[in-house]
Amino acid sequence: MFEQKRISREPLYDFLMKVLQKVGCKEFQASAVADVCLEADMRGISSHGVARLPRYIDHIQKGLIQPEAEPEILFQTGVSAVYDGHHGVGQYVAKIVCEKAAQMAQKNGVGISVVRNSNHYGIAGYWAEQIMKNEMIGMSTSNTAPLVVPTFGSQAVLGTNPISVAIPSYYSSPIMLDMSTSVVSRGKLEVFSRNKKPIPHGWAVDANGKSTDDPTEVLDNLKEQRGGGIVPLGGETTTHGGHKGFGLSFIAELLTAGLSLGASSLHTYKEHGNISHFFMAIRLDLFGDSNALLEHMHQIALEVKQTKPCEGHSEIYIHNELEYRSREDALKNGIKLDIPTYIELKKIADQFVLNL
Amino acid sequence: MFEQKRISREPLYDFLMKVLQKVGCKEFQASAVADVCLEADMRGISSHGVARLPRYIDHIQKGLIQPEAEPEILFQTGVSAVYDGHHGVGQYVAKIVCEKAAQMAQKNGVGISVVRNSNHYGIAGYWAEQIMKNEMIGMSTSNTAPLVVPTFGSQAVLGTNPISVAIPSYYSSPIMLDMSTSVVSRGKLEVFSRNKKPIPHGWAVDANGKSTDDPTEVLDNLKEQRGGGIVPLGGETTTHGGHKGFGLSFIAELLTAGLSLGASSLHTYKEHGNISHFFMAIRLDLFGDSNALLEHMHQIALEVKQTKPCEGHSEIYIHNELEYRSREDALKNGIKLDIPTYIELKKIADQFVLNL
Repeated sequence: MFEQKRISREPLYDFLMKVLQKVGCKEFQASAVADVCLEADMRGISSHGVARLPRYIDHIQKGLIQPEAEPEILFQTGVSAVYDGHHGVGQYVAKIVCEKAAQMAQKNGVGISVVRNSNHYGIAGYWAEQIMKNEMIGMSTSNTAPLVVPTFGSQAVLGTNPISVAIPSYYSSPIMLDMSTSVVSRGKLEVFSRNKKPIPHGWAVDANGKSTDDPTEVLDNLKEQRGGGIVPLGGETTTHGGHKGFGLSFIAELLTAGLSLGASSLHTYKEHGNISHFFMAIRLDLFGDSNALLEHMHQIALEVKQTKPCEGHSEIYIHNELEYRSREDALKNGIKLDIPTYIELKKIADQFVLNL
Repeated sequence: MFEQKRISREPLYDFLMKVLQKVGCKEFQASAVADVCLEADMRGISSHGVARLPRYIDHIQKGLIQPEAEPEILFQTGVSAVYDGHHGVGQYVAKIVCEKAAQMAQKNGVGISVVRNSNHYGIAGYWAEQIMKNEMIGMSTSNTAPLVVPTFGSQAVLGTNPISVAIPSYYSSPIMLDMSTSVVSRGKLEVFSRNKKPIPHGWAVDANGKSTDDPTEVLDNLKEQRGGGIVPLGGETTTHGGHKGFGLSFIAELLTAGLSLGASSLHTYKEHGNISHFFMAIRLDLFGDSNALLEHMHQIALEVKQTKPCEGHSEIYIHNELEYRSREDALKNGIKLDIPTYIELKKIADQFVLNL
């Protein structure tokens, strides 16, 4: 869509490790960030990849993210845990809390863990997929900065609150849904803004609640809290189900900030990020013979895959299938970065006297 | 929106009980159906209320629904159960399986139960709310007849697969999201078709995958499997997130038919309904002090509620708030039925020599 440049995973990973350690991350924190970022870029989700590096650096330097912090368990049972992230590195906090959910499920069938006072944790799908690798159903959701206007509202009080569910199967690519509960995520607006392209109508509203195609105006309004913002999945009104996207975002808010007694999206990014996450792991063999279940999931996916496409399309894509292909391609031929992102990284390289 | 008539709950309930018993339901099965139907009508969800009665009767008379069947547990652990519904009355099967999830959660914190070979269970939200009444997070999803065309497909292979989540709180109305994962449910198309009104573009596509405003044509095409159908939440293409609604429907398919080794939506309504449901109960006190959690949920809801509305609107509605008001009104002033539905019920009353 936009002009792009390819870089191999290895040098990009090394570069991220070095930059992140220069700004205060320990090696195991830097590797969590680098890994999640590159997974996003490899899958073609450039909105959540290395393009976020300048913001991460800024947040560490301003103290919103505190690399010295360790997540702490506040409350737990055999199937649940509540953490305080103490403003640590989001991807590192998420790794600890997500692994806890999987560990509990390993032992007791189900594990649900929530954390408050964390920071941006990258793509939600990364976490659901980590859980899925243990032959479990993985689910994750997070709140975000306040970016989304509720149906018939004029202020952004909700997050783009992504929801991800990964389901183990014998299908040829890992089945995983990862979606913001808004029409698009802020990252998508940023990609258009960086590339100076108009956004389609029906993605966002201006400070007066009117439809707009100017991504930079929307991003600026959000930054200055002048009103307006991104629209929930389903659009501006109830006619095409905007209240459903609004509801999904709201439920995500309650599962994350609600269950962790954390800050709602409206109160994030003040002194700290104060983001909350939710992770759930459900062992597949809670429902019988894993082999039969993995095969049945596969058959259902195959049926959907084999739906006759409409005119102009040759294939139906199962969720994560395109991203999985993109990932395979990136591992072989290099990760695609759009030019403005590449230029940003070059600037950072110069600033920290590093090669890229 | 359409011309309506009001009838008190009590005579309508009695009428349903009598009709359902006349066609072979036992009293406890009839009461499950009547209760779920009237909850839908009271909330203003006329697509899922008594308007379904002719179809339920037809399905019982044709043997798709078998009132003599009892659900059977096939597999269970302390936190999970898999049932075979043996083609029983959907609402009765759902009641048994849903209560099992709540019972497991009462004992072990979490309970997840799935069932295959069930029938239409009414509004998904009814079940999530039953679980919520025990101070638990309630979730339910179901597959349906094949009604939804995947993004860039031309055949309906997925269900409108509703998802419902209910979250306990001190908010003034029970917080509950209940949504089909398509732009609209089939019931909504039927309401427009019964009332001979065109549907908005962006709800459904014709047999060639083109946008249409004729609900009767879409319903007929679906019935005759001529192609086309309802569009996933987010619309026909990926531009406004149609792939997200597609993904939600697909995940619901895997949680219901997938986990129960049941029939996918594509294979429902052949000899039997063969519908699958999923229920999940999560005790709120798994996350700490219930009182603090109920209050925090309330505060988050209140913040969203207090968002400044856009021009032309006076209030932001939390999910289930309008439906709850409608329910209170219906209990006081009678249940609103649209005229075509009322005429259908009158016909049934004549047929079974009953008063209405």
